[in-house]
Amino acid sequence: MVSNPRRHLQILVVGCALPCLLAFARIEDDRTWYSIALSAVVSYAGLVATKALVPIVKAFNLRAGLSGLDINKKGSPAGEKKIPESLGLASGVVFLVCIILFQQLHYYDAASFVRWLTHGGSWWELKSVVVEQASDAWLVDYNAALATICFMLFLGFADDVLDIPWRVKLALPCVASLPLIIAYAGGTGVVVPRPLRALCFGLGPRLELGPLYYIYMVALVIFCANSINILAGVNGLEVGQTVVIASAVLSHNLMQLAGNIPDEVRDGHLFSAYLMLPLITTSMGLLLFNWYPSQVFVGDTFTYFSGMTLAVAGILGHFSETLLMFFIPQIINFVYSIPQLFKWVPCPRHRLPRYDTATGLLHPTPNWNLVNAFLSIFGPCTELVLCSRLLAFQGLCCGVAFWARHVLAGVYKE
Amino acid sequence: MVSNPRRHLQILVVGCALPCLLAFARIEDDRTWYSIALSAVVSYAGLVATKALVPIVKAFNLRAGLSGLDINKKGSPAGEKKIPESLGLASGVVFLVCIILFQQLHYYDAASFVRWLTHGGSWWELKSVVVEQASDAWLVDYNAALATICFMLFLGFADDVLDIPWRVKLALPCVASLPLIIAYAGGTGVVVPRPLRALCFGLGPRLELGPLYYIYMVALVIFCANSINILAGVNGLEVGQTVVIASAVLSHNLMQLAGNIPDEVRDGHLFSAYLMLPLITTSMGLLLFNWYPSQVFVGDTFTYFSGMTLAVAGILGHFSETLLMFFIPQIINFVYSIPQLFKWVPCPRHRLPRYDTATGLLHPTPNWNLVNAFLSIFGPCTELVLCSRLLAFQGLCCGVAFWARHVLAGVYKE
Repeated sequence: MVSNPRRHLQILVVGCALPCLLAFARIEDDRTWYSIALSAVVSYAGLVATKALVPIVKAFNLRAGLSGLDINKKGSPAGEKKIPESLGLASGVVFLVCIILFQQLHYYDAASFVRWLTHGGSWWELKSVVVEQASDAWLVDYNAALATICFMLFLGFADDVLDIPWRVKLALPCVASLPLIIAYAGGTGVVVPRPLRALCFGLGPRLELGPLYYIYMVALVIFCANSINILAGVNGLEVGQTVVIASAVLSHNLMQLAGNIPDEVRDGHLFSAYLMLPLITTSMGLLLFNWYPSQVFVGDTFTYFSGMTLAVAGILGHFSETLLMFFIPQIINFVYSIPQLFKWVPCPRHRLPRYDTATGLLHPTPNWNLVNAFLSIFGPCTELVLCSRLLAFQGLCCGVAFWARHVLAGVYKE
Repeated sequence: MVSNPRRHLQILVVGCALPCLLAFARIEDDRTWYSIALSAVVSYAGLVATKALVPIVKAFNLRAGLSGLDINKKGSPAGEKKIPESLGLASGVVFLVCIILFQQLHYYDAASFVRWLTHGGSWWELKSVVVEQASDAWLVDYNAALATICFMLFLGFADDVLDIPWRVKLALPCVASLPLIIAYAGGTGVVVPRPLRALCFGLGPRLELGPLYYIYMVALVIFCANSINILAGVNGLEVGQTVVIASAVLSHNLMQLAGNIPDEVRDGHLFSAYLMLPLITTSMGLLLFNWYPSQVFVGDTFTYFSGMTLAVAGILGHFSETLLMFFIPQIINFVYSIPQLFKWVPCPRHRLPRYDTATGLLHPTPNWNLVNAFLSIFGPCTELVLCSRLLAFQGLCCGVAFWARHVLAGVYKE
């Protein structure tokens, strides 16, 4: 197996970008194409900005005492070095700035904006840019998303600084998600699969869940915000899984946008794509520093913020069921972790593997999580290989989710 | 002069509450009355929550090393004690939770909600509560306010932890204010005073500022967010001035609501009142600990957040000119500070008075700010008296602003 960290990262980038690009190429509608392209340009600027900001925030965080040791390298010289923590601060703030700036640009018709830019972009021809008033409903969604994600980023950072007890941590995403829940203007029914309909005679093609649907959404937010946080502890894993899931979501959005869909469905996927593009690029900017061997840690700042952003995209984009399928490794990890999370089995603060200084390999410990399960099943390996295996599994699950969605579409169809 | 700190605080509370209560009593419209009352109930719960939360956050912040010494007591035993910093975190988070929860309640017609509660509040009579769908335009404003205030609270806390350079600090409120600026749906013209109209023949009764008005709003946000931060350094001053200004704003809103005003003007003042009520109560909860002698400091977390909240209320409530009149002491302090802010005159990190350990009095230092100017003009005094004098001046300026507004209404009238 190749053990050059940079090569592994390149494979990750290509693996994530390829399906997105293929789906993007299939979009025929000009307006959609230009809007996505414009968002991609803003997001690329976000990558550059994150790359520039990380070294600066790194110095600030080190000075403020936000740092930790790399436990998976304990006993080696790399395990003695203080690594700055909470660098999710850099990518999170850049992400927020990106979506705030893009909100401004979205006022203008992207195609006419590009035409204006390519014709020299002169001040007196600014009038040729067509201004489209964004609808109020769209702005409600956008601002609710902004408020929710910002609140979660803030709480994540406060947690990194203050070390909030987990009971409080669990309650706060509920509160942060309320603006989102209010903004949610979609239906509260679910489609009943045909076999189930045949079994239960009382069931129609749609089951109206009503208030239960709101409880489902809050549960989804809490799950997403915490699930990335508990599948962690290996260099690059938190950011890596975010990039993989966000790329899967983006591919799904673009594939839907390329198809023939009603306007309100189109709005949802466009909305999600506008969130995923900057999430992927700012996370990539961070991953350049967080990839094995990590120069920075990302902290709860990153895991809460990225989990919340994915949840927001799924809810306001109206594809939360598909989103959950991309979270299969996190669901497995969560279910497998339950005995320790509820303290039926003793739970140390960090549920990490054991590092063997002689061989440089990681060995499983008796902790109930996916990281140790992978080491038990596939045998001891280096931290880099372990991370890549876990991310490959994440990618595989996303692929299966796409396939299952395709097959199930037949079962679900009315 | 009385020198019992608790007595001074009582006078402050009565002085702030009285004009609000008088204006509130004049409101005749039932729906408005109940909405304000409901917001007051939620806000009161915010006071209780802040009072309970401060001791908890205090312990967390001390543990995380967020603390400082009280420089105005240097040389006395009280000056040796570590005082926890950034307690604006407690009041800020409670404030956000209050306005998020109130957003939920606002869905229901307050009068019918109160009727339901007073009739036992039984589950099966819940249907008697009239549900009113809040308009999208209202939600855009509300969520934009939420996003902007939350972003500012986050940046304030990040500043307290990381000590961000002031150039960056200046830029970030601009970005945080963008959702607010987009949500701003009001006119961009100003009324020209009659004397000026007579002087310049080209001027009509209204001057359309267009894009200049947006620049004005961004400038207002930057000014408000920073001006409370630089009129500081005396126990209780930052929170005290926030309470005084917010009470003046609330009185203004309630007086307008009691009058005969068009619906869109009414919405603006109602919106502002919904922000001011929890701002006043959560700040009061904090002031109980921050009043002389301070057990906690509030940090940039509080000053940025409170300044931004006031700016948001003024902009989305469409009374930013009146708001600026309530900021007269801050304007004087800012203009007077310019030589030091721009380093024409040497500027130390803290521009504080000098504490005389023998007499317990504060003496002026050659720093260009309002705190030292007051000591020069009215003579050395205790920290408590100095804070009360500054707050009395703030109250006086607000009173003058009310009077000027009344007189100018004649000059402005078309």
